[in-house]
Amino acid sequence: MAEFTVTFQPDNKSVKVKQGETILNAAIAADVFINSVCGGLGKCGKCRVQVEGKISRWDSELLSEEDRDNNICLACVSKVDGDIEVFIPETSRAQKHQILTKSTGIEVETLAPMTRKFHLALPAPSLEDNISDYERIKRALKEQGVDDAHMDLQFLGSLASELRENQWDVGVTVSEFNGKNEVVSIHPKELVDKHFGFAIDIGTTTVVVSLIDLNTGETVASKSNYNKQIVCGEDVLARINYAEEEGGLFNLQRLIVETINYLIEELTLDDEVCKRRPKEGTCKEDITSVVASGNTTMTHLFLGLDPQHIRLEPYIPTACRFPAIKARDLVLETNPHASIYCMPCRSSYVGGDITADILASGLYKKDELALLIDVGTNGEAVIGNKDFLASCSCSAGPAFEGGEVQFGMRASVGAIEKIALTVLSGKGDEKDIKVYYKTIGKIPPKGICGSGLIDLLAELFINGIIDKSGSINDIPSSRIRDGEEGKEFVVAFADETSLGKDVIAHKRDDGKIILKESKGKDIVITDSDIKNIIRTKASVYASCSVLLKSMNYTFDHLDRVYIAGGFGNYIDMKKAILLGLFPDIPMKKYDFIGNGSLGGARLALLSKDMRAEAEKIYRKMAYIELSVNNMFYNEFTSALFLPHTDLGQFPTVEKILSSKTKN
Amino acid sequence: MAEFTVTFQPDNKSVKVKQGETILNAAIAADVFINSVCGGLGKCGKCRVQVEGKISRWDSELLSEEDRDNNICLACVSKVDGDIEVFIPETSRAQKHQILTKSTGIEVETLAPMTRKFHLALPAPSLEDNISDYERIKRALKEQGVDDAHMDLQFLGSLASELRENQWDVGVTVSEFNGKNEVVSIHPKELVDKHFGFAIDIGTTTVVVSLIDLNTGETVASKSNYNKQIVCGEDVLARINYAEEEGGLFNLQRLIVETINYLIEELTLDDEVCKRRPKEGTCKEDITSVVASGNTTMTHLFLGLDPQHIRLEPYIPTACRFPAIKARDLVLETNPHASIYCMPCRSSYVGGDITADILASGLYKKDELALLIDVGTNGEAVIGNKDFLASCSCSAGPAFEGGEVQFGMRASVGAIEKIALTVLSGKGDEKDIKVYYKTIGKIPPKGICGSGLIDLLAELFINGIIDKSGSINDIPSSRIRDGEEGKEFVVAFADETSLGKDVIAHKRDDGKIILKESKGKDIVITDSDIKNIIRTKASVYASCSVLLKSMNYTFDHLDRVYIAGGFGNYIDMKKAILLGLFPDIPMKKYDFIGNGSLGGARLALLSKDMRAEAEKIYRKMAYIELSVNNMFYNEFTSALFLPHTDLGQFPTVEKILSSKTKN
Repeated sequence: MAEFTVTFQPDNKSVKVKQGETILNAAIAADVFINSVCGGLGKCGKCRVQVEGKISRWDSELLSEEDRDNNICLACVSKVDGDIEVFIPETSRAQKHQILTKSTGIEVETLAPMTRKFHLALPAPSLEDNISDYERIKRALKEQGVDDAHMDLQFLGSLASELRENQWDVGVTVSEFNGKNEVVSIHPKELVDKHFGFAIDIGTTTVVVSLIDLNTGETVASKSNYNKQIVCGEDVLARINYAEEEGGLFNLQRLIVETINYLIEELTLDDEVCKRRPKEGTCKEDITSVVASGNTTMTHLFLGLDPQHIRLEPYIPTACRFPAIKARDLVLETNPHASIYCMPCRSSYVGGDITADILASGLYKKDELALLIDVGTNGEAVIGNKDFLASCSCSAGPAFEGGEVQFGMRASVGAIEKIALTVLSGKGDEKDIKVYYKTIGKIPPKGICGSGLIDLLAELFINGIIDKSGSINDIPSSRIRDGEEGKEFVVAFADETSLGKDVIAHKRDDGKIILKESKGKDIVITDSDIKNIIRTKASVYASCSVLLKSMNYTFDHLDRVYIAGGFGNYIDMKKAILLGLFPDIPMKKYDFIGNGSLGGARLALLSKDMRAEAEKIYRKMAYIELSVNNMFYNEFTSALFLPHTDLGQFPTVEKILSSKTKN
Repeated sequence: MAEFTVTFQPDNKSVKVKQGETILNAAIAADVFINSVCGGLGKCGKCRVQVEGKISRWDSELLSEEDRDNNICLACVSKVDGDIEVFIPETSRAQKHQILTKSTGIEVETLAPMTRKFHLALPAPSLEDNISDYERIKRALKEQGVDDAHMDLQFLGSLASELRENQWDVGVTVSEFNGKNEVVSIHPKELVDKHFGFAIDIGTTTVVVSLIDLNTGETVASKSNYNKQIVCGEDVLARINYAEEEGGLFNLQRLIVETINYLIEELTLDDEVCKRRPKEGTCKEDITSVVASGNTTMTHLFLGLDPQHIRLEPYIPTACRFPAIKARDLVLETNPHASIYCMPCRSSYVGGDITADILASGLYKKDELALLIDVGTNGEAVIGNKDFLASCSCSAGPAFEGGEVQFGMRASVGAIEKIALTVLSGKGDEKDIKVYYKTIGKIPPKGICGSGLIDLLAELFINGIIDKSGSINDIPSSRIRDGEEGKEFVVAFADETSLGKDVIAHKRDDGKIILKESKGKDIVITDSDIKNIIRTKASVYASCSVLLKSMNYTFDHLDRVYIAGGFGNYIDMKKAILLGLFPDIPMKKYDFIGNGSLGGARLALLSKDMRAEAEKIYRKMAYIELSVNNMFYNEFTSALFLPHTDLGQFPTVEKILSSKTKN
């Protein structure tokens, strides 16, 4: 089959691909980022690119005539049919994103990290003391209280030279894992005090790696980035679909490992880190333990396990607790013999990230009854205390991450993150609606992120612009109009936005690239967008409600509500309650634990007890499957209003609404 | 660097090698066998080949003028300098060899093999019973009494499809190793009754693989062959030297794995084996446990561990007990997840083969005081009973395997294996010495193997042809003459031998290969050969003597002597005692256990208790280093006579000699 060269601009990266390959896959192969929410199904329209050269093009409704005139196509469904040059407009490129790298959960009581370091001043062998190198290490470790330390074959290969190069005076790193002691590193004795590990939060959208000093428990530095798998689809279902394509699983595993390795590279190049070490340039070798926390699909993809049955009823993962894994088996760029512990998952849709949240919140060991909510690309809820734990998946949908909303976007530069409205009387019946907003990075807006959408809906609702069902009222205003998908409300007019202005690159005959701005667009929210957001909030609320009822509790019984994840961190809680996303209970009961997935991974890395607790949580926690639950369906339907069909559940909101009505 | 093609005849195999590569290494790369005793040092002269084409040639004293005229060179020191054709004469090719594949040691009491098979009729998952595939297997195994069964990542990858393809009704193989239960195979339930493992004896010279039915303990079939590493040197020191060359260790590991895989192929293709299985052609997949027994160097090379410190004082191996190893890590062609247990070694020169001998003899659990002697390419001795064990290495040298003796050879076709002499009066002072011999394969003799050498020396001694020190007496006889290396005794004259007649291949201009026999040679034994054999026997006897003395015993205290290994099986014990190789104690105390290395490996494969015993033997057994032992030096010197300086230690020999003198 013919091969063609695809060159991506402005990256100026080239790749050779077979005829018929999609431009999106060519971009993955060239390590060039193009947005793709739907994972290559041609449905989201986020992967617009401009092409020069021969392609077989799939004409989409998502493209205008002007687009076609400008040779704009969707990268995921357009196939290479000759040597081509592809210009990626700004809007199809990843933006640096707000990623929460802090957790404010509990702390470990006693440091007992996954690896321990020992200084072993071994007696040099002699004819009288002629035990093998391996037994010599075991004997010395036994003297230090480490019984029956194991070494695996791949490690034994270099043992003889390591011991002799260090003249029998060495540092040894021992990993305690699955109740088994294993030597994972032999190094100069000077490195005994330098003892580091990684806690990794593998999110569907973002990945955070924290470098942890295992001697002090301190987080030395954290780095975050997008999960490179995003090009294969934004949510777990899109990823699972992609995994079923030929080579898909391999690609997904490669991409997540590349994401992590890139962050490892950044962390270990950091001055802050390297200056703690006596020798430069070998930081990676010193990382001998890793804890990874991710949802069940992410954990499967990280380990290269086929996720397909996660998607199909009855939703069975290959594994929920994972065997001891070596970094070398995943080509993770730590010490190749480093032990990797993956947080145990409860089920296909309550993953290791939730186990980590529970650890970080400490709810599993307290008397008080607590609810934990994690709204990310997926949503999960847990209730419990020291006596019991029950969990469910909210199947929330990606509305708060920018999906299913026309001008929705992730919390990156140009996203509207705060909104306030005032409604004044204008000419005649006309209302003069003023919109005040704040964008991330303080540039003209490109779209609205999750916290902005919550603000927007709450303001629209409280100002009577939308009704209880979320429909835009028939108010005479320049901001309210009939659009292609029903009524829409203009949040920002084209002249104030930077969205829609694809900066399109044209290559002139002289080879020079010139940029041309296309016409801007109004940023609007439509009836249909609002319905999608309401469905998402209804799903979260109904899930929590069913979870409580299943255990014979109501929201009133709750002593505490933990909100985990970046989303919870950035939103205006009062407005979220006003919409009926979260229960209307006293604000002092809310506790924000930040990135609990990362926080829990760090706890497990630092404490043997915490790893035991994680395994206990796995065994103890009930899982309630909502997809076939009638109670859930009723609760969901009741929650499809603002804030809820039963206003009695939202007393403070009721008060606000009645005071508004009185005005 | 230039590359040239080397073609080997009569195999007609070609290989491309870099300029300057030795012909021997080219042969290894082409998988063609050429004898090499010294391992490429140009010292043994066993790798004679005839070359057409350009080589850079190293002129050796081992080559005659006639050889040079015939373009004969030593393959190990001649380097490729153009496209060449290499003819390998019959004498430089491996001969099929007598390999002992039977052990007559003890039997296991209760079958408890390294792997167990279970039939698991799993409930299909449902929304109510939605644990992961991994947990489903663990739960079902727990019901069958197998706690906390582990699976490793490489295995988990295929778990989901295996379970679904077999509709949840499966057979499962569980390995119990290092106290850990591990699932190593999922298969159709019909295969539960088909349960096999391999016991492997990795000898320096020969390798034996036995296919064992783990349900019955029966040895289904055994196959044996040379260790392909022989081309890299005949004894462990030559192999260690070779391992230190660039790529040497890798080559040695590859060659032993190839040797084993070849035997596996033969065993699993065997009708006898395949007819026991419901499906053909998948036999290898069913082999899920392997026990390998070899000396310390062989075990290191099998596992790819650097053996160099075994050779250097204080003789420290990397490991003596070995971690759980997977077949896939060694590319062994069993089930890739099969567990491999290597018999523990006591020290650099008392290896896993001796541990296996001890197991097979049962001496470790008996009241009676026993001595165990294993004379192979190396020699080892053990004394003990149920209360103690002590061992040493005899550093015997390869005289009994054909090394260090001019016309010595291994026990293959054409080797003289039995000899008797009569001495009659001839003309005048002349003696008419008649030599009666029997060759393996009943063809004209090519050389003398170990058992033949023992017969020969005993007959020479008893007939007064050699004296107590092994020097050939000045007897007028056509068989006794002065040779290049002192006196020599002609065992067979050129006209009765087939040795020395290199069958040399010549390629004519028309491309046809014609064969020409070179002039034959007398088969002789020289003073120097005899001294080498006496040194070997003295070393074995002195080692046993020192071992006993170290524990305050003498040979008279022995209740039993176990002779292990092929050599012991084929020799005439009375003649061996006459020479002073073995102690002069009642014959009924001698017990021949055959291939104890293989027998012990089989016991370990079949019995958990036996594996525990092997580990106990490792911990319990003392090791006495003779290389620096003064007592050994004295004993050795005293043993450098036939049968011994102290004839009192050999009462039956004394009687024979005195009766001879009377005649």
